[in-house]
Amino acid sequence: MQRILGIDPGLRITGFGLVQLPDGALEPTLCEAGVIRLDTKATLPDRLTQLDEELGDLIAELKPTHVAVEKLYAHYKHPRTAILMGHARGVILLRARQARLPVEDMPSTEVKKALTGYGHASKDQMQRAVASQCGLAEPPSPPDVADAIAIALTFARRLAYAKL
Amino acid sequence: MQRILGIDPGLRITGFGLVQLPDGALEPTLCEAGVIRLDTKATLPDRLTQLDEELGDLIAELKPTHVAVEKLYAHYKHPRTAILMGHARGVILLRARQARLPVEDMPSTEVKKALTGYGHASKDQMQRAVASQCGLAEPPSPPDVADAIAIALTFARRLAYAKL
Repeated sequence: MQRILGIDPGLRITGFGLVQLPDGALEPTLCEAGVIRLDTKATLPDRLTQLDEELGDLIAELKPTHVAVEKLYAHYKHPRTAILMGHARGVILLRARQARLPVEDMPSTEVKKALTGYGHASKDQMQRAVASQCGLAEPPSPPDVADAIAIALTFARRLAYAKL
Repeated sequence: MQRILGIDPGLRITGFGLVQLPDGALEPTLCEAGVIRLDTKATLPDRLTQLDEELGDLIAELKPTHVAVEKLYAHYKHPRTAILMGHARGVILLRARQARLPVEDMPSTEVKKALTGYGHASKDQMQRAVASQCGLAEPPSPPDVADAIAIALTFARRLAYAKL
């Protein structure tokens, strides 16, 4: 049994989604998903501390075997945002490593392509794809949750098919 | 007495410099400087873990009262490097906060201007300026050490003059 925690890092909202892959199964199932909301009025060190602590609690509670995190690219439209996300991502990688969990970088275009066939899928398309493929009545919201679930799904499928 | 730890963050080399400012003094003195060299063959999570641990040891040993870290800008020539530096910087801010130390962002152009009068000073100019202003026989090397000392010096002077 493998449990993959997908994470969409951010300094306002960090989305997470946990999927489970029973041994021999090809399709993962969604167990849990949500967001870590950081206090946007707090200083950057305080926000990073909050992220570190809440992620630690989440790992202790959800007991993942793998962590998959959205990869960052240099060709972002908003380089400032990418640099700030780098701060959050550094803290997430550190915390995962401290919990002795393997960490996988997942490029967002690859995740979008995997779920929708389209590397530039919109937030709305991703939310619908996740709802459809996880059998949810409603598209998960905010989009950060959908992205985190999509990251976990894509990596879990890769793990499943690598064993065939 | 205030002790300022200046840090020039990087995922290969993180420079550090500690300066001390006795109460009532206007000019800080250099106490200690060096680099944290990360294993560039290690994975990013492993490197961040090494940085976190070595910085923790350094803070325990040097007992700073303030931490000053180079600020990152979006208009970097190498956005990929800036994003990776963001990871290192996130871990540094987290560790400083865990040690309950106030953290100051120092823009590199401001630091260069403070030491040389020129916001786009070269690495060599910065190394010479630090040697001259700290009374060192040799320019500190690698440049990352000089930059870290310069960051600490600039912030310490700001603290000193803010009290006048």
